[in-house]
Parts: sequence; C-alpha cells; structure tokens
Amino acid sequence: METALDAVRRSPGDGPVLGVLGGMGPLATADFLRKLVERTPARRDQDHIPALTFSANFVPDRTAFLLGSGPDPFPALVASARYLRDCGAAMLAMPCNTAHYWHARLAGEVDIPFVSMVQATLKAIGEVAPTGPVGLLATTGTVSSGIYAQPLADVGRTCLALSEELQAEVMSGIGLVKAGQIAAGAAKFAMAERDLADRGAQAIILGCTEIPVALDAAAGLGPARIDTLLCLADAVVDRSQR
Amino acid sequence: METALDAVRRSPGDGPVLGVLGGMGPLATADFLRKLVERTPARRDQDHIPALTFSANFVPDRTAFLLGSGPDPFPALVASARYLRDCGAAMLAMPCNTAHYWHARLAGEVDIPFVSMVQATLKAIGEVAPTGPVGLLATTGTVSSGIYAQPLADVGRTCLALSEELQAEVMSGIGLVKAGQIAAGAAKFAMAERDLADRGAQAIILGCTEIPVALDAAAGLGPARIDTLLCLADAVVDRSQR
Repeated sequence: METALDAVRRSPGDGPVLGVLGGMGPLATADFLRKLVERTPARRDQDHIPALTFSANFVPDRTAFLLGSGPDPFPALVASARYLRDCGAAMLAMPCNTAHYWHARLAGEVDIPFVSMVQATLKAIGEVAPTGPVGLLATTGTVSSGIYAQPLADVGRTCLALSEELQAEVMSGIGLVKAGQIAAGAAKFAMAERDLADRGAQAIILGCTEIPVALDAAAGLGPARIDTLLCLADAVVDRSQR
Repeated sequence: METALDAVRRSPGDGPVLGVLGGMGPLATADFLRKLVERTPARRDQDHIPALTFSANFVPDRTAFLLGSGPDPFPALVASARYLRDCGAAMLAMPCNTAHYWHARLAGEVDIPFVSMVQATLKAIGEVAPTGPVGLLATTGTVSSGIYAQPLADVGRTCLALSEELQAEVMSGIGLVKAGQIAAGAAKFAMAERDLADRGAQAIILGCTEIPVALDAAAGLGPARIDTLLCLADAVVDRSQR
C-alpha cells in the first residue's frame, strides 16, 4: 500500500505519515487533529503533516480496567498500534492520557517512534511552572496509575490529588463531555480546579483529553492550565520538522 | 491487517470501519470528525463509529486544477481512496466539497460504498427549504464545476452565483480559515451571505468545508444555513445504523 501511495506523493516535502491512535474518546481525537493543524506552521493544505487517524472506539474502557472492573484494553491497543504501522505510519501519537499507562509497553510492541503525551506535558510544566505543587484533573484511572505523580515525585514535586468527592465530580464531568454535554462538564471541572488552586497548585494538568474540550486552556485564572493535547501536538510538530 | 484487528474487535456491535478521505483542508477534517461524533447516538466511546481518517494533505489543490492552473488531483484521490479500502475501510466519506467534482469517477474506482456529501446536502435542502432560489458559498472551483447548480437546475431550482468581486472575497475568506484566521474569514463569508439573502435565497449552502468552521450553521438570520459537513455526518450515521 505504501508503494501505491508513494507514487502519488511526489513532492520532496511530503513527510512521513503520522499514525494517530485515537477514539479514546472520539471528541478528543477530533480536538487533537484541530490542535495539530493549528500548531503546524503552514499556509496551505499541502504544508500540513499527513496523518492516518484510527478512531479505535472499540478499545475497552481504560479506567474501568485500572480500577479492577473491566477487560484489559492492552490487546486492542497493541493491535491498533500495529495496524497503523502496517498501514504505513512512520510515527505514532495517542491522544488519551489514561491509555498512557500502557505507553512504554506499547512502544515496545511497534518498531516506530511513539511520541509520549506524558513526557510532552512534563516538558511544558517545566517551562511554565518550574517549581511548586502541580494539580491533576484526570480520570480516576490516570490518577491512580501514577503516570503523572510518579515522574513529578522523581523530580521532587508534589502532584495534588482531589478528595474522593471531587474526583467523582471530575469523572462525572468527563462522562458528560463524552455524551456531548460540554457546558455541564465544564462546571464540574471548574469546581475541582478551584480546590487545587486554593491548595497552592502552580499548574493544573488538564490530564484527560475530554477536559480541554470543555475548559479553555488559554483562559483560567491563577495556576497555568496545561492542555495535554496541545503539548502532544507541539511534540509531534517538533519531531516532524527535524 | 483486518484479521489482526478483527481478533480484538469481538463485540457483535462493532460495525464496519468508515474510511474518511480527508485533509482537504485539514481543519475541515477535524470539524467533520467532531460533527460525526456529535450526530452519532452514543453514550460511551464504544458506541461510536470506528473510523480511519487519512489526512491526505498532499492532494493537489482542487480549485486551481478546475480553473486550469494546476496539476490534476484525481490520481492522488484515487490512490488515497484505494489506500483506505486496502486498510480495511468498508465505506468511504470525503469531507471536501470541491473534491466532489470527482466523486462519481472516484466511486467507480473503489468497490465499497462512497457516501456523497452533495447528495446528502441536496436532501437536507429539500427538507428545510423545498422551493425558491438557493445560495452557494463555496470555492470558485465548486461554483464553476456546477456540482450543486446542475442537480438543483435538474429539479427546476436556481443556484445563485456571486459577483466576481464577492466570489473573490469568499476565496480570500477560505484562505484565511485554512491559515487559522477564523474570525477574519467569517467576516468575508457574512458579507457574501447578506448579498445572497437580499437576492431571495431560501437556503445558503455552506459549500466549502472551511466555511462552517467560521460560520455557525445554527446561527444566521434569514435563509437557512446548510452545513454540508453536518449533512455528510447525518448520511454516514444513517447508513451505519442500517
């Protein structure tokens, strides 16, 4: 298939195809593609990064498994990553924080570069808020897996967790966004954000890809909002231009 | 590849994969994916339509060719459609109006259903504005190719064209949106829309996928705004549920 495609991609500027392991959730994937376009220095269609996006909506719920109550999503993630590689993708990105629990294992299953959204986010935090506690708005799966708390602890920083009640509000907000009720979700995220700000957070990780769909990363008062989708887009653009 | 994927897609509800021939332009593709998600009756990720989206940004400019000043995009379109089919897509959709000039020929080159955005849009116009003239905001390529004017004339309806000056403003607006300057583009589209409304248009086709990125189809005063991306999303959802 690559050969047939290569035949029509004659411009020397045509870069390698980015594979996007998406569908977790579906709105976040559309939002990532929009942000990737917005962050790519381009003046016409042909300047953009060619991408193959697989909306793998069938991947079992990541948080349910991490909390011990659902099937393992890893086999579906591996099959989807290999599928993108077999379709000709030369680099992978996965716009879903919770799924990054499996990122290192997944990267080991495919022989192409796999950009990490967690690494991209930690880099951005280091730039905009280099010291002090960091707040995390994310699924209960992401929080409990420690994908952000562990690397922050490794550099001596605290990742603030929410009370059980507020964490339940965040999960409810994520469910509302997935069902298209964006304003209702935003209200729940804002409540949790206020709590983290009051406790001294210098930056707030919008650590589930559904959250920046509802909360504008550029707005916000107090601690810097870190949009993990924008961090991933910037990392992909950076790698594509090397 | 389909076999490896089939092994992990075990739920009987897993439908066939939709192939999205996108990247024309890149923002419109993200917007289409968002609208597809919003129009799909779903309560969780796993209810959504699995999709493989190819951002084929390298396809030569459609309007330039139709106006006689650029390379033929047809070979790149055929290769991209076959690529999606070879990757396992069971149905195709192409969120770009100008490229629909080649829709019938393209559909003949692949042996899977290829939903037409033009047909989906004509159906919507028949429902919301069954009589009277129809306005068209689109690229000069789409306007001159007659992909909307011809089928409207076939049912005795007029497709209003813009003056050369206003058509140039629309093209300039489309370029602004492609470059990310959305508000500036919206102002140009609104100017052309007022002219079409004054001339009696009962419906306005937002006939370039960049236009609804800037103009909200649900807002607008006077004639109904017909968002061709929403029409395509509805047609895909309708077919996927049969």
